[in-house]
Amino acid sequence: MSALLTDLYQLTMAAGYWLAGKTEERATFELFVRRLPANRNFVVAAGLRQAVDYLLNLRFSEEDIRYLRGLEQFARLPGGFFDGLKEFRFTGDVFAVPEGTPLFAGEPMLTLRAPLMEAQIPETYLLATLGFQSLIATKAARMTEAAGGRAVVEFGTRRAHSPQAGVLAGRASYIGGCAGTSNTLAGREFGIPVFGTAAHSWVMSFQAELEAFRRLQELLGPATTYLVDSYDTLEGTRRAASLGNPLWGVRLDSGNLVELARAVRSILNDAGLPEAKIMATGDLNEYKILELVAAGAPIDAFGVGTDLATSADAPSLGAVYKLVEMEVGGERRFTAKYSEDKATLPGAKQVFRYLGRDVIGRAGECPQGACEALLKPLILKGELVQDLPSAAAARERAQAGLRALPKKLRSLFECEPPYPVELSDELLHLMEEVRQLVRTNGT
Amino acid sequence: MSALLTDLYQLTMAAGYWLAGKTEERATFELFVRRLPANRNFVVAAGLRQAVDYLLNLRFSEEDIRYLRGLEQFARLPGGFFDGLKEFRFTGDVFAVPEGTPLFAGEPMLTLRAPLMEAQIPETYLLATLGFQSLIATKAARMTEAAGGRAVVEFGTRRAHSPQAGVLAGRASYIGGCAGTSNTLAGREFGIPVFGTAAHSWVMSFQAELEAFRRLQELLGPATTYLVDSYDTLEGTRRAASLGNPLWGVRLDSGNLVELARAVRSILNDAGLPEAKIMATGDLNEYKILELVAAGAPIDAFGVGTDLATSADAPSLGAVYKLVEMEVGGERRFTAKYSEDKATLPGAKQVFRYLGRDVIGRAGECPQGACEALLKPLILKGELVQDLPSAAAARERAQAGLRALPKKLRSLFECEPPYPVELSDELLHLMEEVRQLVRTNGT
Repeated sequence: MSALLTDLYQLTMAAGYWLAGKTEERATFELFVRRLPANRNFVVAAGLRQAVDYLLNLRFSEEDIRYLRGLEQFARLPGGFFDGLKEFRFTGDVFAVPEGTPLFAGEPMLTLRAPLMEAQIPETYLLATLGFQSLIATKAARMTEAAGGRAVVEFGTRRAHSPQAGVLAGRASYIGGCAGTSNTLAGREFGIPVFGTAAHSWVMSFQAELEAFRRLQELLGPATTYLVDSYDTLEGTRRAASLGNPLWGVRLDSGNLVELARAVRSILNDAGLPEAKIMATGDLNEYKILELVAAGAPIDAFGVGTDLATSADAPSLGAVYKLVEMEVGGERRFTAKYSEDKATLPGAKQVFRYLGRDVIGRAGECPQGACEALLKPLILKGELVQDLPSAAAARERAQAGLRALPKKLRSLFECEPPYPVELSDELLHLMEEVRQLVRTNGT
Repeated sequence: MSALLTDLYQLTMAAGYWLAGKTEERATFELFVRRLPANRNFVVAAGLRQAVDYLLNLRFSEEDIRYLRGLEQFARLPGGFFDGLKEFRFTGDVFAVPEGTPLFAGEPMLTLRAPLMEAQIPETYLLATLGFQSLIATKAARMTEAAGGRAVVEFGTRRAHSPQAGVLAGRASYIGGCAGTSNTLAGREFGIPVFGTAAHSWVMSFQAELEAFRRLQELLGPATTYLVDSYDTLEGTRRAASLGNPLWGVRLDSGNLVELARAVRSILNDAGLPEAKIMATGDLNEYKILELVAAGAPIDAFGVGTDLATSADAPSLGAVYKLVEMEVGGERRFTAKYSEDKATLPGAKQVFRYLGRDVIGRAGECPQGACEALLKPLILKGELVQDLPSAAAARERAQAGLRALPKKLRSLFECEPPYPVELSDELLHLMEEVRQLVRTNGT
């Protein structure tokens, strides 16, 4: 992975650390979601596998180095800096919350400790990969919650923010609870179930709708799903039903889905196909799914595209990556930011999950009775020390974690009070200590 | 590029076309934006270079084919289909609107004509790459319009929908009018100016802010931009000013930017640094930029992250890819969709740009007086026939195209009436003909 896939300022800072002789200093950064997006009561952590792949393969190619040498921003640097980049590797430690874990505002999802330069450069990539996948996993959890047990399938690659984002959206949606994705590469790369049968162009490529349906049945047998709205949904359903078994069912993609689903159900039942299923698609989101389910529409599965793959109502996660500790020659210094609206807490932390509440404490604490310490060692001295779970395992963890939350937390709207997340006494003490120090020193 | 980076149904349809013996049939698809997103009066076309790279390199690897063979959806297919995939290449024709061109609802951005299977598989990738980059180029055009001549720099990779989306967001933002990006890989790959100096972690990694500033100046000289809000913006500015020249200026990242910019301007002027510039960052968007400019805040440049890289107020573009013609044994058939809310127009089209209006006509028309026919041949029989312009050239085209629009079209809000886009008589005639045919045949 090219180390240039980062903000330029990470690289100017890296150069500055080198120039300032800070190569022996070690930094600890924490990645966390500052505030939950609107209407969310949790986020589902996702994207760790890609974050790890990145750290373990982070390199400056010769082309990368040549490019940097040519930038005017680097004109004042001695050649020794660029020679060093050839050998650049990530040699630090990473502690992280397993994918699929529900998290709350302020809880570190990942802690990274490394020589300053190695800790600085990955910021941009880590935020983008963990932030995006967590955003989509969270959206998927909302969709599946709204669907109340009916399958939700992710169909959004075409509207994702680049084809590559579509692959990762498929992965994250599955972790968040979807039954699968239409993204075939996500299926191959991550072992995720893939779904999809035919589009309007299939129907239109044949002279007659019935012929298109017959050919589809020949191809897919019991997986056949007829898209019935190219010309007229009910007439299309009658044509599909006339072909009898085998089929999976029909897909409705436009019109009033409640009314159409009822009418379509009747047509299928009357044709002796009570087992045939109905899938609904077409600009759906969790609120529309909730309405369809509440209206008792006989829909068995939902396919969701745009709104899921872009998390349309909240298209970004306020994830940040903050310096919390510096270590110079064995001496630790805790850092925090006290600017107007973006304060941070000093020191490396741990998230202790109790039954019904979390406590954010200092990394070294050993409190009584916590069920789980969420941040677990993943990379030590640049080496992976723990196998990464599959997407399916992460999905199971998400399901278990979400089931364990109070029902009201799984609402599609903001719930008051939020889930209880406390700060430990030790952390509060450190926070005050550092604040005093900053005030005294005037930095 | 793996041909699996698509929706599964494109592949099941491809298999179905093969099974139905439709390998000789040629299809024409058009990609267009059905409706403009809220508050937009145009979109800036972008993403064509990536679309072309994809089509020219589209392949099924052995691993891809092995994966497909193992899917239950493909269990009924004879082995001949999979053998054919090894030789799969895109051999069709592509006509496209050059990157940087402002377009309106319903105007084809790309027309693709190829054997049915080759035309079907690329749908997902083309929509994702052209849709996303056009979305971001359009957002960037709004930002730069609001900034009224001040520079806008794209800083959003960390909030982009994956790191890869960040690279493309950097590219698209530049095409749309930004001065550059912080994404260093986008800089290297596309020759885009890159910007960025230091973050809060730089300041905090030193014991004292002044020391951090001094080291930055040593590193960057005249490019030095001090981030002054780590502890106190005005105090930070005084420290920065005390170092005198060389510097580019300071960056404000929190607080009331109008008031702070004025106070910071005074401090810099009083310190004999009237040439030092002020950059503002921190959750900006086109509306906030407009407000800051209107308030007369002495800000010289804006850095925009989240809102730009995710097009936060409209995070998707309603781009679609529709079958408009089929050709079987030299005979053409025009196709269209007449479902309730998603009707399409039949036949391959051309967009004729006149002064002050566009006409969508049939591809073969030669109307009098049009300034430009926007869809130009790009790939013929699978071969690139035209050099692709650089990102810088696309940016120039966008600037010229946007300047040529009536000022009211460049508003940040929806303008009534919209830009005049008419349908030619020939196209209207064909539309009616096809509608009659569909009604008669009942398909």
